[in-house]
Amino acid sequence: MSLTLSIDAMGGDHGPAVTIPASLACLKSNPDLKLILVGDEAVLNERLSEALVTFNGRLSIQHASQCVGMDESPSKALKNKKDSSMRVAINLVRDGRANACVSAGNTGALMATARFVLKMIPGIDRPAIISTLPSIYGHTHALDLGANVDCTAENLFQFAVMGSEVVKAVEHIENPKVGLLNIGEEEVKGNEQVKAAAKLLEHSSLNYIGYVEGDSLNAGTIKVDLIVADGFVGNVALKSIEGAAKMIGAAMKEAFGRNALTKLAAMAAFPVLKKFRQRIDPRLYNGASFLGLRGLVIKSHGGADALAFETAIHLAEIEAEQDITRKIAEKVEALLLERADS
Amino acid sequence: MSLTLSIDAMGGDHGPAVTIPASLACLKSNPDLKLILVGDEAVLNERLSEALVTFNGRLSIQHASQCVGMDESPSKALKNKKDSSMRVAINLVRDGRANACVSAGNTGALMATARFVLKMIPGIDRPAIISTLPSIYGHTHALDLGANVDCTAENLFQFAVMGSEVVKAVEHIENPKVGLLNIGEEEVKGNEQVKAAAKLLEHSSLNYIGYVEGDSLNAGTIKVDLIVADGFVGNVALKSIEGAAKMIGAAMKEAFGRNALTKLAAMAAFPVLKKFRQRIDPRLYNGASFLGLRGLVIKSHGGADALAFETAIHLAEIEAEQDITRKIAEKVEALLLERADS
Repeated sequence: MSLTLSIDAMGGDHGPAVTIPASLACLKSNPDLKLILVGDEAVLNERLSEALVTFNGRLSIQHASQCVGMDESPSKALKNKKDSSMRVAINLVRDGRANACVSAGNTGALMATARFVLKMIPGIDRPAIISTLPSIYGHTHALDLGANVDCTAENLFQFAVMGSEVVKAVEHIENPKVGLLNIGEEEVKGNEQVKAAAKLLEHSSLNYIGYVEGDSLNAGTIKVDLIVADGFVGNVALKSIEGAAKMIGAAMKEAFGRNALTKLAAMAAFPVLKKFRQRIDPRLYNGASFLGLRGLVIKSHGGADALAFETAIHLAEIEAEQDITRKIAEKVEALLLERADS
Repeated sequence: MSLTLSIDAMGGDHGPAVTIPASLACLKSNPDLKLILVGDEAVLNERLSEALVTFNGRLSIQHASQCVGMDESPSKALKNKKDSSMRVAINLVRDGRANACVSAGNTGALMATARFVLKMIPGIDRPAIISTLPSIYGHTHALDLGANVDCTAENLFQFAVMGSEVVKAVEHIENPKVGLLNIGEEEVKGNEQVKAAAKLLEHSSLNYIGYVEGDSLNAGTIKVDLIVADGFVGNVALKSIEGAAKMIGAAMKEAFGRNALTKLAAMAAFPVLKKFRQRIDPRLYNGASFLGLRGLVIKSHGGADALAFETAIHLAEIEAEQDITRKIAEKVEALLLERADS
């Protein structure tokens, strides 16, 4: 099956310096993949002259005259940057010319633009951001990681429905285990929204396993496939984990760099440490999907390097191949019919 | 200055097996310290017969006929366990016989009992849980870590006031830098409570530096001394960090344990890894204080070993010596007068 992705080539902290090598690597590894790189034609043409020949018919350039800044406000980007690389890349998804779009541009502007251009799936009230975290069991999917600051129980329930479809499709799991992020596992714990969401999940066809705590994202007492939270809590959890990993990395570097002896130990341990780092390399977990829209948008970390951006493109390939948007829309439609009947 | 602490000797997953050795170690290291161990007299007398002689006059036993279970509901503990080791230990603080109480018992029951027995400081609406986390800058204090699921802006402001007093006293910093936990550093980010709390903090005499994200708990771009959040978000962040550390530890163990060669590398790296582990050893960060009550209660992790419980007792020593409760009460009174004047 041929698959076309649109790439916001100008987005992120590094722009084409990262998006181009990552794109070319993906074209090389997947012969069925087609990419449309969106951005300043002059810049891209110059950098891609050779690749356009190599990947003849699979690589093309779509001009966009503007660029959304990493600190630009979503409303300003929406109003003033109608020909931004981000916007044009999303337009390609709306127009059916691309199966998904990948951008390392600023999250707020990307979400606002995607929502404006693509519109919501009927029955879904708010988009959510889902991503994958390494865990002692392999990995865990979690949403919402920052699209919404306040969520109702119904929002949380919809996140669970959408997330389950993603996990099913991506992990090939029949009934993904869904946990609701809370501050304790007992029934009495939590705020009103979480308690009400638990009731909705208990009475649904989802494989709801109950409340889970923050440690379940990486290392819970039992395996959970999908963790649902409101965007404020989910984002804080994600960033806290990033901070913890950074601090542990710094402490390790410091311990091994202390003197000649410890540096010798570092050399002896180098291959092991390398293997260990690969296991939890955040670059291999880069890429968050916006769910609930009538089209797929994958957000890469703004500071992503080529390897990390490649991971985000791979995620787009998998989710587009699995036709996630259609699956979510069908599931939601079925749920709405069920509710109407009952 | 002589200092007396009451110890809930029966609390935690391990009870006297942990609380006794930790207590004796603290008595040994601080000749000015007095401890009252609270619990089953028969059990404690037998285990302490020798120590009662060694630490003559500095160690005593207070009988309590009941024990609060680790899964017991706060309301049941409050109603049915009026002679629990936890309750009696807190009573000693209320009666002025101890300067602070340390317990590894269940958090909910301990908080409910402490609140019921000690009552709130006038001007503080809700108690909060504060603790310390290792960071690339040394460490960060954070509250609320789970006492409150929903907080108003005024609650968050009061947490900042109380937390600042703790950091001042414990770290000997004149103007601790206070950050508000949010999902972005820009002014537009966050929910209504956080935005309103920011306004209160901006107009206060506290050294408020603005919004910080989850990674600031361990490794932010700038140093922050105190991070303020509602109890739901704070607890999820704390647990997420615990999970991340556990996962990284497991991945490292796995990498070094893979085969004979990697095990050899582990031996070479052992002294370095040991040093590294010490830097982020969670046992050396054990102990969370309940703030806002008319008496000091320090909560140890339920699964604490003797070293970890010792850390919690040390924290109680420092906070009692610094007379944290009085300092918070005075600061709050001053703030209330300021508001009345304005």
